[in-house]
Amino acid sequence: MRVTAQELAILLDAKIEGNPKAIVNKLVKIEEADRDSLCFIANPKYEHYAETTHAGVLVVSENSLLKNKNGTTFLRVKDPYNSFAILLEKFSTESTAIKRGIEQPSFIHESANIHPTAYIGAFSYIGSNVTVGEGVKVYPNCYIGDSVSIEKNSTISAGVKIHRDSLLGERCIIHSGVVIGSDGFGFAPQKDGSFIKVPQTGNVKIGNDVEIGANTVIDRATLGSTLIKDGAKLDNLVQIAHNVEVGSHSVIAAQAGVSGSTKLGKHVMVGGQAGFVGHIQIADGVKINAQSGVSKSIENPGASISGSPAEPFRQHYKNIAHTRKIGELMDRIEKLEKILSKN
Amino acid sequence: MRVTAQELAILLDAKIEGNPKAIVNKLVKIEEADRDSLCFIANPKYEHYAETTHAGVLVVSENSLLKNKNGTTFLRVKDPYNSFAILLEKFSTESTAIKRGIEQPSFIHESANIHPTAYIGAFSYIGSNVTVGEGVKVYPNCYIGDSVSIEKNSTISAGVKIHRDSLLGERCIIHSGVVIGSDGFGFAPQKDGSFIKVPQTGNVKIGNDVEIGANTVIDRATLGSTLIKDGAKLDNLVQIAHNVEVGSHSVIAAQAGVSGSTKLGKHVMVGGQAGFVGHIQIADGVKINAQSGVSKSIENPGASISGSPAEPFRQHYKNIAHTRKIGELMDRIEKLEKILSKN
Amino acid sequence: MRVTAQELAILLDAKIEGNPKAIVNKLVKIEEADRDSLCFIANPKYEHYAETTHAGVLVVSENSLLKNKNGTTFLRVKDPYNSFAILLEKFSTESTAIKRGIEQPSFIHESANIHPTAYIGAFSYIGSNVTVGEGVKVYPNCYIGDSVSIEKNSTISAGVKIHRDSLLGERCIIHSGVVIGSDGFGFAPQKDGSFIKVPQTGNVKIGNDVEIGANTVIDRATLGSTLIKDGAKLDNLVQIAHNVEVGSHSVIAAQAGVSGSTKLGKHVMVGGQAGFVGHIQIADGVKINAQSGVSKSIENPGASISGSPAEPFRQHYKNIAHTRKIGELMDRIEKLEKILSKN
Repeated sequence: MRVTAQELAILLDAKIEGNPKAIVNKLVKIEEADRDSLCFIANPKYEHYAETTHAGVLVVSENSLLKNKNGTTFLRVKDPYNSFAILLEKFSTESTAIKRGIEQPSFIHESANIHPTAYIGAFSYIGSNVTVGEGVKVYPNCYIGDSVSIEKNSTISAGVKIHRDSLLGERCIIHSGVVIGSDGFGFAPQKDGSFIKVPQTGNVKIGNDVEIGANTVIDRATLGSTLIKDGAKLDNLVQIAHNVEVGSHSVIAAQAGVSGSTKLGKHVMVGGQAGFVGHIQIADGVKINAQSGVSKSIENPGASISGSPAEPFRQHYKNIAHTRKIGELMDRIEKLEKILSKN
Repeated sequence: MRVTAQELAILLDAKIEGNPKAIVNKLVKIEEADRDSLCFIANPKYEHYAETTHAGVLVVSENSLLKNKNGTTFLRVKDPYNSFAILLEKFSTESTAIKRGIEQPSFIHESANIHPTAYIGAFSYIGSNVTVGEGVKVYPNCYIGDSVSIEKNSTISAGVKIHRDSLLGERCIIHSGVVIGSDGFGFAPQKDGSFIKVPQTGNVKIGNDVEIGANTVIDRATLGSTLIKDGAKLDNLVQIAHNVEVGSHSVIAAQAGVSGSTKLGKHVMVGGQAGFVGHIQIADGVKINAQSGVSKSIENPGASISGSPAEPFRQHYKNIAHTRKIGELMDRIEKLEKILSKN
Repeated sequence: MRVTAQELAILLDAKIEGNPKAIVNKLVKIEEADRDSLCFIANPKYEHYAETTHAGVLVVSENSLLKNKNGTTFLRVKDPYNSFAILLEKFSTESTAIKRGIEQPSFIHESANIHPTAYIGAFSYIGSNVTVGEGVKVYPNCYIGDSVSIEKNSTISAGVKIHRDSLLGERCIIHSGVVIGSDGFGFAPQKDGSFIKVPQTGNVKIGNDVEIGANTVIDRATLGSTLIKDGAKLDNLVQIAHNVEVGSHSVIAAQAGVSGSTKLGKHVMVGGQAGFVGHIQIADGVKINAQSGVSKSIENPGASISGSPAEPFRQHYKNIAHTRKIGELMDRIEKLEKILSKN
């Protein structure tokens, strides 16, 4: 597609610096740009590329100190990353055809209720009493257990396993290899040191607009429901244990893990590889740094937390700085000891 | 089902406090209980709910200081979590029909030996010389490689991949997405900085009553066997490298990882996201805290270990407490320096 | 197979100590060896077994101080691990027949281009415009999305999911449960605290001779390509985010994670459970210890890095040693304070 800087400015509500008639025909990374390219700088780390690029059009923040040069036309916007999302949508040629209908061979239990606009890929298994809503896509090699319900316009990528009684909302995106509704990890220790399994009789409930990354696992509740609320976003290889609640619009980065019965509030942000013990509460808007180990409830909304065991962000970085001064302290104490031994 | 406090007391060997004729008909979480509900308190964190609940019957520890009120009948038991397991079994309506027979389409090599009482789900692949025992369930979309043996009453959930020569015992439960018998990670470095693959010719042997969580991976041995012994329980997303041994009745929480040739004793407990270097031994009954990094053998049975690099639990928490006092130490040293500079 | 020490010495370019006519017929772990066994010591931790073994032939390093006894014939080689790789190859009876042709049922789009020597397992799904090269093996239950290309002699294990536009080189080995080309984790925050998805329109490009461990995930780029270069080796359960680059012959151990747009150089070695923040560069030959948290670029080629936040290896271990001395420092300060208070 060919588009002028002027047209893009209208689409993005941007201020133009340079030639409004500049024409671009592709969206590329700034380090690979030529005169036909539309580019973005959303992260200050990449601003240095603006010095040398010959991109036709460059979208930058209205607050950026960058100046247009080399004949590049600037579009200044409030939020470049947001504009990026809008333009990716516009420029991405829909590379996969719209899927619809039931591919063969597939296995669909006679009691399942599949909407006529849904897509069921080959080698997918649909159990008894399953509901697959309008516009839902179940890609190949999926397993959908008995009594699962998937509401309209959700996408289940290839090789997903969703176990019995799980409920998914509208417009969810579940990536390949995800397991939803596996048994929680519950065992009652016996006197001889062995364990008996605690049956996991609950389910998983997932709200609307939830996205779940590849190979992430969400266990069913022992009793009641494990909850992933509206708009939550989970990255790849995340562990969600039984009876956990993830609040709406919370974000969990890759390889993080939440132990049983822990409840995250709304708008919580969890860094990669962070972990939570079980049975704690995390207030709304809390930010957990990558690799943190959260061992107790956080009651202060919007708090920033870091370290293992986790502590307030500032405290943690003060402790790290202090630790690096221990050598110096040892020297100073030795000096004092020498002075005093002479007295 | 409807059941009286009296009947439950007999089942659980409990002491009744309140009305032996109280009738309940469902098992629910205490925070959601009404007069028809049977509830449990197994974790002291939830005792405060006992103040306000109107549950019909509440199971508590015989040692609990809680008193029955609001018309709730108490059942006092030795181990509430154990009782919970027993009652979940009793109250869980068997929601999935008992599976038996071979669903179509499936792929079963002519040399495979499938017991007539076994279940093979659609889209499952059974290789040559595979043995599937009495009452075994292989759910849909599984891959069972050549010469694998699965003994009686084991359950293989949907989408599990078990590679050639792996041996599984009786009553095992393998959750969705598990990979058993993938190649170990072994490469011989070459002079030019590249690597040649070390063939992984061993297998995986899994004992009886082992449970393995979703998307966990257990690599085959280079030579010999990777061993998961009787009664061991592994959570989701765990990594078990080649030639590892996990002792009987050991428990490994989610996202923990054990490097090559490391041997865990019996009754070892490993917290979530903990890691072990290769070629070390862990004594029986050792407890490893979540996120620990275990870098050397632990020879002391029953030791509690924490931190990265891991150290005895008490030492670790003393170090953390000390670290938080460095600021104070700096102030005290400065004060001493000032005093001495005046002298 | 039966083979003499003499024949093995020629194969491995080894010096014989003992009986050149000693015959062995199996390759086993040293702790399980008898007179018919060929064994190896590649790791000094296992040298003590050499004292008591009755193995027929033992391969050791030419630099080892071990002496042959108990009638065991020694073969001294430059690199025992390398010799081990060569002999495993030789001794491993090819336990699986060579796979070829297309098993049924499978799903192959009419526009796909499958080389006649390739193997496509049952229940595998091959999308439109896919290219499957000479000698490629796609095991059962795989999903190969539209326009994927897999070059000659690569092996795709059971249950792998490769999404649209991904490109794989020659002789790659992709283990079970791997997901390649899932959407990167990109969301633009909105004023109301919700998120809109940033479309992920790029792809994944994998070089030649790459091995990827079970249940590892490699996300597609937002724009451009996520790159895994020639000879890189990734272990199980690794997370590679969008737009990451992994340099040639780099090695990443299990459960490590690399955040978006981070670039690892050549010959980088990453320990298990290590993590990297996004948008940083790691120089060639850098070694990252297990469980490290790398929060900034490392510009020094060959540096050794440890801890979270990561710092140079020596500095990290000095800090740990210092931390353990804080208690002693507290005592010394107290002593000084007492002395001075008396003055």
